[in-house]
Amino acid sequence: MKKNILIIPGDGIGQEVTTWGKEVLNKIAEKYHHEFIFDEAIMGHTAIEATGNPLPDETLEKAKASDAILFGAIGHAKYDNDPSAKVRPEQGLLKIRKELGLYANLRPILLFDELLDASSLKPEVLRGTDILFFRELTGDVYFGEKKRNEDNTFASDLMNYNRYEVDRIARKAFDAARTRSKKLCSVDKANVLETSRLWREVVQEIAKEYPDVETEHMFIDNAAMQLVKNPKKFDVVLTANLFGDILTDEASQIAGSMGMLASASVGDGTGFFEPIHGSAHDIAGQNKANPLASILSAALMLDIAFGLQEEAKEVTQAVADTLKAGWRTGDIANAETPANKILGTKEMGAKVLEFLK
Amino acid sequence: MKKNILIIPGDGIGQEVTTWGKEVLNKIAEKYHHEFIFDEAIMGHTAIEATGNPLPDETLEKAKASDAILFGAIGHAKYDNDPSAKVRPEQGLLKIRKELGLYANLRPILLFDELLDASSLKPEVLRGTDILFFRELTGDVYFGEKKRNEDNTFASDLMNYNRYEVDRIARKAFDAARTRSKKLCSVDKANVLETSRLWREVVQEIAKEYPDVETEHMFIDNAAMQLVKNPKKFDVVLTANLFGDILTDEASQIAGSMGMLASASVGDGTGFFEPIHGSAHDIAGQNKANPLASILSAALMLDIAFGLQEEAKEVTQAVADTLKAGWRTGDIANAETPANKILGTKEMGAKVLEFLK
Ligand SMILES: CC(C)[C@H](C(=O)O)[C@@H](O)C(=O)O
Ligand SMILES: CC(C)[C@H](C(=O)O)[C@@H](O)C(=O)O
Repeated sequence: MKKNILIIPGDGIGQEVTTWGKEVLNKIAEKYHHEFIFDEAIMGHTAIEATGNPLPDETLEKAKASDAILFGAIGHAKYDNDPSAKVRPEQGLLKIRKELGLYANLRPILLFDELLDASSLKPEVLRGTDILFFRELTGDVYFGEKKRNEDNTFASDLMNYNRYEVDRIARKAFDAARTRSKKLCSVDKANVLETSRLWREVVQEIAKEYPDVETEHMFIDNAAMQLVKNPKKFDVVLTANLFGDILTDEASQIAGSMGMLASASVGDGTGFFEPIHGSAHDIAGQNKANPLASILSAALMLDIAFGLQEEAKEVTQAVADTLKAGWRTGDIANAETPANKILGTKEMGAKVLEFLK
Repeated sequence: MKKNILIIPGDGIGQEVTTWGKEVLNKIAEKYHHEFIFDEAIMGHTAIEATGNPLPDETLEKAKASDAILFGAIGHAKYDNDPSAKVRPEQGLLKIRKELGLYANLRPILLFDELLDASSLKPEVLRGTDILFFRELTGDVYFGEKKRNEDNTFASDLMNYNRYEVDRIARKAFDAARTRSKKLCSVDKANVLETSRLWREVVQEIAKEYPDVETEHMFIDNAAMQLVKNPKKFDVVLTANLFGDILTDEASQIAGSMGMLASASVGDGTGFFEPIHGSAHDIAGQNKANPLASILSAALMLDIAFGLQEEAKEVTQAVADTLKAGWRTGDIANAETPANKILGTKEMGAKVLEFLK
């Protein structure tokens, strides 16, 4: 198989972690005789510094022309502390999602037994948890019209959904539920929001086409609570852009650390694969970041973008083997982890490569 | 002290739990020689059934005329499953919040040592947690214009804030931080939302007037994660209506159960005191609901509305003593709780009264 893969490291720890996602893809290519051709492009703060634009045209063109994208992270504290900045790194990420039509963001909460103790939740609460989030990614209050009046006394963002936007992501989620335990929970705030009421209506309609899937509707506040109380009760979770952003970060604690979670954004065009963690500027360049989320993003790419299930499984297994052998980065270590088992980014990445043989 | 207290039981378990909040207030009145005069009014589904209106004029008039309101819960599954219903119980709650100018919702996350084991979080993660949420309550996407186009292909809700709305709640939160450990965390999504950028600007400005308070800004996704990972890192948390709704429900798991959390809504007029739990129709009328959140709401009323700190402390202490003596309702029991220690709503309420002597 021959594929063109674009690497967009982005900001902060992005460069360090995508290095290892790429190494793993290289290893898989070698082993299974695929040809993966890599190119690289800039986005976010890095791109603003270089060109003034968080998503340069060249990056977008390369993205559209590639078969899959491995992305690192975005964001910089500089802009966070300056709410009036007009050009911001995140605009690059939002624009590429929109331009590539990446309306479905899949976030599997994959729990490795070895990390049961890394979580702040009790092991008995966690054991057996396996959730697949479908977060809508190109609509909602993220993309609605933004306003600020001239004297800075008022600001607004339009939260909005079109029926077809709910329809297409719902179908993807129901299809996935069919291949799993046939349970789907749709999360909204239909007791307050008109957008959520439209969302719920559409999901109710589509549910009729999937009578074999048990469908539940839950309010976002309740879902945020249940996710801590009893994560096992969830299987496929379908939700809007903003609620999905919040719930999936919260759910990262089920997996022990944000540093473990990969995501796949898919839709009309080239698929986009990225860790759910951010740019973590506080540890950038210090060889401290956990490369596993980027490596697992590469596994999702193999599986979802290229249909290479065996290769994907092998990568996930190598991550499991690395953890089983006791290797940890700082974020997933605990008080009992021996100091000589705690590795930096490079050493952890190299371990996974070893297990890929 | 002479006070007029309006009881609004609302829907579901509301009647059962407010009964005990009221009993406790009665007991305190007797013991401390206060005169509490009670009246009752309807709201929500109950009011729709009786009058067609979720907030009848009579209820609103009584509310405005009273010195404090003890509220139960609102909502009914009937409307949740019918997204196209035009009249909904929640409209009553939203309208009374707006009409009374209840812009600040205080939600203390009070952790009783006895309940450390009732949580899905590890005791060592929880121990020492003490958070006070300030949730803005009369703005945001809750009250912005709602639209639905004629052919039902589009829906929207306007998320919006005025500067003065952020200003007044921020000041309340900073004032509270001064009386506590002088740490304030403001939660927003300023990397995406214009509303959040205005929010952050205003909070940054006000922070300058409180140089003794250590101010931090956090994105909502990160906050939802950190709250599970390390709740102890939070003290006063300031946030908008929607984010506050989500975060405080999530935080209920720190206290072991939604059935434990009280809240105070204050602002321009009569204060409004209510549990953060919902109407829980599945257990309504079965003597299963936990009355402690209503009792603790009564304690907040004594403290915040009437300035009766000693009386408030005594109520909280009676709840602590009841828990210390091993008494539990179902929601806060665990596998080790002896069956004869698990009480119904009435029995639990009566226990607290006993401890109030
Ligand atoms: C960086 C930010 C714009 C982004 C989002 O909110 O979507 C991030 O939090 C994510 O979840 O991918
Ligand atoms: C019932 C609902 C409208 C309400 C809200 O979202 O504000 C509730 O969840 C709350 O937190 O008081």
